[in-house]
Amino acid sequence: MSLFHARQMDAADPLRRFREAFVAEAGGPIYLDGNSLGRLPRKALGLAEDLVQRQWGERLIRGWNDGWMALPARLGAKLAKLIGADADEVLVCDSTSVNLFKLATAAVAAQAPRRGIVTDRRNFPSDAYVLQACGDLTIADDAVAAADGGTAVVALTQTCFRTAAVYPLEETTRRVQATGAWMLWDLSHSVGAFAVDLHASGAEMAVGCTYKYCNGGPGAPAFLYVRRDLQERLLSPIPGWLGHADPFAFSLEYKPAAGIQRFLAGTPAVLSMACMEPGLDLLLEAGMGAVEAKSRRLCDYLIAEADRQLSEFGVTVASPREAAWRGSHVSLRHPEAWRLTQSLINDYAVIPDFRAPDLIRFGVAPLYNSFEDVCEAVGRLRLALRTKSYERYDAARLAVT
Amino acid sequence: MSLFHARQMDAADPLRRFREAFVAEAGGPIYLDGNSLGRLPRKALGLAEDLVQRQWGERLIRGWNDGWMALPARLGAKLAKLIGADADEVLVCDSTSVNLFKLATAAVAAQAPRRGIVTDRRNFPSDAYVLQACGDLTIADDAVAAADGGTAVVALTQTCFRTAAVYPLEETTRRVQATGAWMLWDLSHSVGAFAVDLHASGAEMAVGCTYKYCNGGPGAPAFLYVRRDLQERLLSPIPGWLGHADPFAFSLEYKPAAGIQRFLAGTPAVLSMACMEPGLDLLLEAGMGAVEAKSRRLCDYLIAEADRQLSEFGVTVASPREAAWRGSHVSLRHPEAWRLTQSLINDYAVIPDFRAPDLIRFGVAPLYNSFEDVCEAVGRLRLALRTKSYERYDAARLAVT
Repeated sequence: MSLFHARQMDAADPLRRFREAFVAEAGGPIYLDGNSLGRLPRKALGLAEDLVQRQWGERLIRGWNDGWMALPARLGAKLAKLIGADADEVLVCDSTSVNLFKLATAAVAAQAPRRGIVTDRRNFPSDAYVLQACGDLTIADDAVAAADGGTAVVALTQTCFRTAAVYPLEETTRRVQATGAWMLWDLSHSVGAFAVDLHASGAEMAVGCTYKYCNGGPGAPAFLYVRRDLQERLLSPIPGWLGHADPFAFSLEYKPAAGIQRFLAGTPAVLSMACMEPGLDLLLEAGMGAVEAKSRRLCDYLIAEADRQLSEFGVTVASPREAAWRGSHVSLRHPEAWRLTQSLINDYAVIPDFRAPDLIRFGVAPLYNSFEDVCEAVGRLRLALRTKSYERYDAARLAVT
Repeated sequence: MSLFHARQMDAADPLRRFREAFVAEAGGPIYLDGNSLGRLPRKALGLAEDLVQRQWGERLIRGWNDGWMALPARLGAKLAKLIGADADEVLVCDSTSVNLFKLATAAVAAQAPRRGIVTDRRNFPSDAYVLQACGDLTIADDAVAAADGGTAVVALTQTCFRTAAVYPLEETTRRVQATGAWMLWDLSHSVGAFAVDLHASGAEMAVGCTYKYCNGGPGAPAFLYVRRDLQERLLSPIPGWLGHADPFAFSLEYKPAAGIQRFLAGTPAVLSMACMEPGLDLLLEAGMGAVEAKSRRLCDYLIAEADRQLSEFGVTVASPREAAWRGSHVSLRHPEAWRLTQSLINDYAVIPDFRAPDLIRFGVAPLYNSFEDVCEAVGRLRLALRTKSYERYDAARLAVT
């Protein structure tokens, strides 16, 4: 009955046609780890071939004038539409860590003598590592409450990678700004998962990655956002040649480019960067309103099925039950989460991921995940719990984000 | 007669078979800009397809354990063999600008209270931009002479991008170290062009790019080298999650990895990084001794032909005539260099590049350039000069590095 119901919902899904826009291995696993690495858009296949064979192989150095040089701004303009920003406020470049370093360092310099950076304990550890190098870092339970007159910037990840709990963008930003601090959002688990409106929030800065819900490809370059009115006040701590006012004048003196462009550093990784475009285009075509609506329905359904089928085995829902407070994954808690994840992957052809110490994380990518995916995943997890199939796995852990 | 002679030399060239290892468009131009962007190795074509279709498309998140996570160190170990370093002293990651920032900043911190950075006027301007953010920068005519007791690090590009003049690695390093400063080499125009021996030089640090003579692809990630005995004394100013001692423990506290690994920052751009491997493999197969020997012969030949055919038109050789003092390009000086370059590209199917104000730069890539390429390029430049075909081009300049 469950599966019949799931298929009915899939048939009524207004985004169902987007599923065909992605490559899926015939007979391959149910993929619920799009919050770590999104699926391959079909169009990226042909694009990658053209990029390598024709653009690199034949156009060679001319590729830079053909379009490579414009990639950071052109893709930034597309990404801007997904996060409620203007085209000239977003760049695609470097990694999330490097971009966070650039913006947090620039914010601390601009906010002198304030030197404090506050983040919370639920942030990506990777963000905390970078932030401790950019100012005097405080890691608090309640970052907003911990901000004070010495705080230059509050840096938070909007959607918690463990539980999918989200900060309300506008309210949090307003409370942070009331302390005189700037707000720097990491949107890595938000962008492409639900509608984000940076302009409405008034936030000063944001960063995020493109290889999760944006389906940009493994290690695809990240993005950065700087509110337009601040761009001319800030300097990148890594003043690279592409952030120069006139990169081809070859002057030895650094002169920052006008606007957001000054936050570029070195030469972009063209193959990785260009291949992200089909993923962005699919989100723009679907519209973030529709993406968010489907994300909520899928996650609500996952939670309802987990309650119904898994609670008798001691599985609890670690993610917020209220859709408005949740991103696009659902984390289920169980003491055997690690071994259950191994069994799902190896015995049941379901790929979620594991987060220590006791979470199984099911990422829901609205463009390609179906209600049937969710139904099957919960059903197979129930089977793993009932048969104790996980007991043959070693409890020693090794996981990849 | 010239062409006959060139073809004889090609027939006797021990590296001639490597020409077939690269994609060349049928009827395409003579490509002498491999010092900006190297040609596409044939093997990179199939690799790119596998990377996208199978590794991303089918293996998905499992790709990280299959091998993506190991790419920075594994490719670093291959690159190490090209520059006289050990496998555990080199990483492939980020861009040259970001790597220069990491190492120069780390060096200044380790050399406190010394804060000075000295470079020379012939360095890449892009390096100068980054260096001014890492310490108190002096740009001198003679960088080694300008180093003093306050100098933390002397940062030089070994091979000048304008003239191909090279610093003697060992002697320069020794003179710099005599002042108490550390030596940081940018090997962007050296690696893959001729044999480099960092160990023999004793240099503390190096960076460089892989998209020139290493044929790594447009914007392929760069590399960094830190001498083994210094690795534990240094900290990256961008402490990223991949530089953490235990990235998957998800601890909020940063603990640097042992050794060179600590200089990794964020998630690697997998497609761009993985596609560089065939280029590295070809250099390793050819051997840098053979590559250097051919580079010298090609450049000597280019200079001899330029003297013979072009001097009557006012063309002079701006590169050192002595092979030991020259990298793998030859720059010719002429007041109409800009328009001549345009005419060569558009009228004569020869791609060199232009460097302001008056240089035409002919990059010689020993793995795929031939004596015939050089012979034809000089002959066609003579034709452009004789017919004044360049006069129809606008003198306004736009160029890409």
